[in-house]
Amino acid sequence: MIKIVLDCFGGDKGAAATVGGAAIALRQYGDLALILAGAENKIRAAMQRAGIADSDRVTVLDAPDVIGCDEKPTDAIRLRRDSSMMRAVKLLREDATVAGLVSTGSTGALVAATVLRIGRLRGVWRPAFCPILPTMTGGIVGITDSGANAECKPEALLQYAVMGSRYLTSVYGIAEPRVALLNVGTEAEKGDTLHQEAYKLLAAEKTIRFVGNMESRDLLSGKYDLVVADGFSGNVLVKATEGTALELLKKIKKDIYSSAKYKFGALFMRKMFAEEKAFMNYQNYGGSVMLGAAKTVVKGHGSADATSVAVCIGQAYKMEQSRLAEQIETALAALPDAKND
Amino acid sequence: MIKIVLDCFGGDKGAAATVGGAAIALRQYGDLALILAGAENKIRAAMQRAGIADSDRVTVLDAPDVIGCDEKPTDAIRLRRDSSMMRAVKLLREDATVAGLVSTGSTGALVAATVLRIGRLRGVWRPAFCPILPTMTGGIVGITDSGANAECKPEALLQYAVMGSRYLTSVYGIAEPRVALLNVGTEAEKGDTLHQEAYKLLAAEKTIRFVGNMESRDLLSGKYDLVVADGFSGNVLVKATEGTALELLKKIKKDIYSSAKYKFGALFMRKMFAEEKAFMNYQNYGGSVMLGAAKTVVKGHGSADATSVAVCIGQAYKMEQSRLAEQIETALAALPDAKND
Repeated sequence: MIKIVLDCFGGDKGAAATVGGAAIALRQYGDLALILAGAENKIRAAMQRAGIADSDRVTVLDAPDVIGCDEKPTDAIRLRRDSSMMRAVKLLREDATVAGLVSTGSTGALVAATVLRIGRLRGVWRPAFCPILPTMTGGIVGITDSGANAECKPEALLQYAVMGSRYLTSVYGIAEPRVALLNVGTEAEKGDTLHQEAYKLLAAEKTIRFVGNMESRDLLSGKYDLVVADGFSGNVLVKATEGTALELLKKIKKDIYSSAKYKFGALFMRKMFAEEKAFMNYQNYGGSVMLGAAKTVVKGHGSADATSVAVCIGQAYKMEQSRLAEQIETALAALPDAKND
Repeated sequence: MIKIVLDCFGGDKGAAATVGGAAIALRQYGDLALILAGAENKIRAAMQRAGIADSDRVTVLDAPDVIGCDEKPTDAIRLRRDSSMMRAVKLLREDATVAGLVSTGSTGALVAATVLRIGRLRGVWRPAFCPILPTMTGGIVGITDSGANAECKPEALLQYAVMGSRYLTSVYGIAEPRVALLNVGTEAEKGDTLHQEAYKLLAAEKTIRFVGNMESRDLLSGKYDLVVADGFSGNVLVKATEGTALELLKKIKKDIYSSAKYKFGALFMRKMFAEEKAFMNYQNYGGSVMLGAAKTVVKGHGSADATSVAVCIGQAYKMEQSRLAEQIETALAALPDAKND
């Protein structure tokens, strides 16, 4: 049995989405057990609507409070001990039988709680945040680190590459992920000292498939499976890509409404526009994971619906099933300059 | 008379676009003189087609060679002395009566040539690259530095803010540009040490209108006139924004062609799609300038047409007319920690 705790509150759609997602995942994975964390009465009501009952596969962890998405992360994890997220984090930390945590709540709080309460695997410099975006060729691309650590060193970028590669193979079945380094140009000598040094380490490492530097404009090209970045520029990359796509689709929608002729034309293209929107809706590709954390933590999109929550639970399930943590510890120990602190 | 040298080759559209742009700019600005650099026979042929003749306002600087956009910048500026770009740079450097240079050629070569051959204004740490993007509210936003310097210090970010503010006021008539710092979150304490320190400097500086940190997803929101960034993440920001918009429009176009129904609907929306494409076509908003260079240097888009080249010439003209260089030297000298090296 793989046991996962689900933070049922903090996302935009509340228990309906999270408990709904739990119901889907329970049907999908026969040896999955879920602990649903949050206000018990609301969860029980949602369970009834979703058609799931208490069993050895479903239990409730009562937590009356919820962390808002605008709260300062370090304050939230210190002051909101009774929140669904922090009770779930506590259980994950203390109960050896619980393999992972899925949450659609505050990203900042979850990242901070993972770093400060869950800790890291043996040999990991620091856990790195890894979201997944869709590519123009119908595939996916992972970006790590995209914001857990604003500052890092070349060896950390090598670790991100190794951890991200194992992750993409274990959860997405990509045999030899093509790894690129986010840089300001494609030539090997581009960028600042950090990226020049990281390039050398990545190029020398035989356990990954390093294909060179990538410019940010090529993120969605489908030429890369994993993009390795320092947390600062990785964060800029992911948010700029998301933000531009959403702003542009919003603009097109607004422009369509500005003219009767456009509105008429758009009648024939409704399905297409819905598909474009779904394409850039990251929740369809699963949540972001904290690579290198001592236990599995998956952050679902704030606006995740039941289907998307089920995908996130599936990610956590597959990480545990494939023993990703052990894989990462073994792989990092084999790196030339493994830090076993 | 304001004298500007125009590198007529290196862009995608050759002398037709550059000399065509020259013709427009000459009509627009009565006291503008242009020196057209490049293969003389081709330039003369283009002049004839554009209806301009030699005069005290138009001369030709013969340069048989052209720098390709894929050449390594430092090699190009060293080995291609007879190229239109490098002859134009030499003239700009040596002739005190020439105020500025406009080129649509290799960005890397132009940035390198500016730094290595033209130098910087008094008090400037290093020149910073400043492209202009359109916003969703119909305005523009400048981003500096977006790639001239991969590494920088907090004081450099303050200089970028001061130089960029003066530039937007002088050339775009924005009275008090709203300046934001590119960061991984909006709170003051976000980011690495560089950005935390820069935030303090920017917040304390009274000659600019600092409005706080900006996340990359808000670049096109219209809430900011100038975004200050270290050259690495600024480069990631600009290329991710451009790249995503272009990829998404390409995808929509492809999707339209996948269905007869969509194609029919799109017949009514041709004008709109053309406008969306024009909206994300940066050349319509003018070129990128090298802020803090000892002389005015404007980089037009590689695919710039005559109209767009004329806009770039206009930018250089206005920079000279508003004595932007003097403004920048005075403003930097007044900064708390002005480095007059």
